[in-house]
Amino acid sequence: MAQKESSLTFTDARALTLIGKPLPTDSFFHRVDTAAFPDVPSNVKHLLTHSAGLALSFETNSTQIAVKWCTDPRGPGNNMTAIAQEGMDLYIKRNGQWQYAGVARPETHDCNEFVVVKNMAPIDKECLLYLPLYDETFSIQIGVDPKARIIAKPNPFKKNILVYGSSIVHGASASRPGLAYPARLSRQTGYNFINLGVSGSAKMEAAVADMIATMPMDAFILDCVPNSSPEQVTERTANLVHTIRARHPDAPIIAIQSIVRDGGNFDESIADRVTAQNENFLREIRQLQHTDKHLYLITAEGLLGDDHEGTTDGTHPNDLGFDRMLQKIRPAVLDILGNYGI
Amino acid sequence: MAQKESSLTFTDARALTLIGKPLPTDSFFHRVDTAAFPDVPSNVKHLLTHSAGLALSFETNSTQIAVKWCTDPRGPGNNMTAIAQEGMDLYIKRNGQWQYAGVARPETHDCNEFVVVKNMAPIDKECLLYLPLYDETFSIQIGVDPKARIIAKPNPFKKNILVYGSSIVHGASASRPGLAYPARLSRQTGYNFINLGVSGSAKMEAAVADMIATMPMDAFILDCVPNSSPEQVTERTANLVHTIRARHPDAPIIAIQSIVRDGGNFDESIADRVTAQNENFLREIRQLQHTDKHLYLITAEGLLGDDHEGTTDGTHPNDLGFDRMLQKIRPAVLDILGNYGI
Repeated sequence: MAQKESSLTFTDARALTLIGKPLPTDSFFHRVDTAAFPDVPSNVKHLLTHSAGLALSFETNSTQIAVKWCTDPRGPGNNMTAIAQEGMDLYIKRNGQWQYAGVARPETHDCNEFVVVKNMAPIDKECLLYLPLYDETFSIQIGVDPKARIIAKPNPFKKNILVYGSSIVHGASASRPGLAYPARLSRQTGYNFINLGVSGSAKMEAAVADMIATMPMDAFILDCVPNSSPEQVTERTANLVHTIRARHPDAPIIAIQSIVRDGGNFDESIADRVTAQNENFLREIRQLQHTDKHLYLITAEGLLGDDHEGTTDGTHPNDLGFDRMLQKIRPAVLDILGNYGI
Repeated sequence: MAQKESSLTFTDARALTLIGKPLPTDSFFHRVDTAAFPDVPSNVKHLLTHSAGLALSFETNSTQIAVKWCTDPRGPGNNMTAIAQEGMDLYIKRNGQWQYAGVARPETHDCNEFVVVKNMAPIDKECLLYLPLYDETFSIQIGVDPKARIIAKPNPFKKNILVYGSSIVHGASASRPGLAYPARLSRQTGYNFINLGVSGSAKMEAAVADMIATMPMDAFILDCVPNSSPEQVTERTANLVHTIRARHPDAPIIAIQSIVRDGGNFDESIADRVTAQNENFLREIRQLQHTDKHLYLITAEGLLGDDHEGTTDGTHPNDLGFDRMLQKIRPAVLDILGNYGI
């Protein structure tokens, strides 16, 4: 599968536009500079070094696009592909739609080079290259035909909508980076959905709430029930909403219950836990809605369909599960954003 | 994620029922004993040692089900999860439907032990445990509560329908073994669809056609265009159909065009190749249909939907792509089988 081309000219990613960050950073490939938020738990800080949801925006008339890149040498978990965890995928705009063009396959766990797509027409193409979901990215260079043009393009998506959540937001178990659900939502709607997924660690801690509140967002989606115990849901939901609300008095906040885990189809303990998480979240959100007119709830019903085939491991949606989630979440979110003129 | 329980009693898989083989084998976990077919190409022989599509059928009243298993030490390709390649997933029948119950996560590439599900009601449960898709399986033991009963169950699926094809049939890039498309078709329809996917090697060789013709099938699905060059499609399709037909004069043979590869969205060379493969296949099948009344064709249109989000890498359907394929293939196949009283 190795594809290397000698006749390529490489451009450092830093010369292009990197979209998807909730705040500017000094470390180019980090989602957040957590040095500015010392009280954020260390595991959250670590996960914010992952390049989940980041994408390079550029235009080129090259007939081929290659990538040289280096990541942390860790390999994928058993519920994800290496392409998703430490690889990349490229979209090109055609007839106003972002369309899949190719993947960068990692053949080692640290530094790789791969021709993502070749044999293309030598016309200008607007490109989005999605970065590794579950790894820290150290460097990226984009290779094009020696005489081709490659230039930075602005962010193609409008407004900023934060999606704070668990591994499901982070991107497990999308089969490639561009299929993580915030990325799909952006391409489908034209809004800039920003991936603040922190796998296993979306526990609504006070310091994380404080950090989120500083982010210049037009709306907030809270999909953080799966990682919080039923007790944490009760103890922390109000603080998270109040903290965001204090800095964003009129921004819609859209809370989502946890998917009903297929791991609980027969394991009664898992089923009971999810039920308690979701009941407690519903109670908190309903209570908050008495005084907060800009707080919305999307319930768990039907998020993964009804055949129990929508997960990789009973917890993490596969691409089918994500598609079903978006069929429910997308119209609800678009409705709300439309009502706010966002 | 390691889950080990000391209080388990283990039963060797050989005491249970292994379903999904096209022919009986001496090697318990192989799909075909290719020693009986010496002229089959060596790469096909090797791939038929993979346990793709095999599943253990048993019943137990245990509250937990664990697995100890060993596979070839190879790890997954970059477009698949370790769970799919060398892990397992369990389904339990409830209200007449097979429902996901848990996965066996490989934590090393050779021998592993994992509790697939626990905290279940202590009632009789009919189980199907799908074996690794892309690895040779050497041994499996099923762990249950010390006082629980575990017995072999018969094959729950009726009739035998062979699915001969490429990596797409073999199971790339389903996120777990039970989501390979022949397995999904069996659970959805109750028919026994048998996985004869041979990744990269479904080239309709004469020796493979001879082998397939010996298999005691009620129907045949040929999804073998993706691996055959346009020229091979023209040269070999008629021989494959004639060879099967000679031994199965009245069995429906259902030919499927290749999915239109998303890798060809911008790579004009890939797009041209798939077009040629499918045009040549269409021409061959239409020609054969003049004299073969039991030969059917399912065309490529819409097999992966229209948003180009249905693959992991531009070639291999992800679980969303497989779902879309089945929405077209399932009713077409059911229609044909119904007309034959199968």
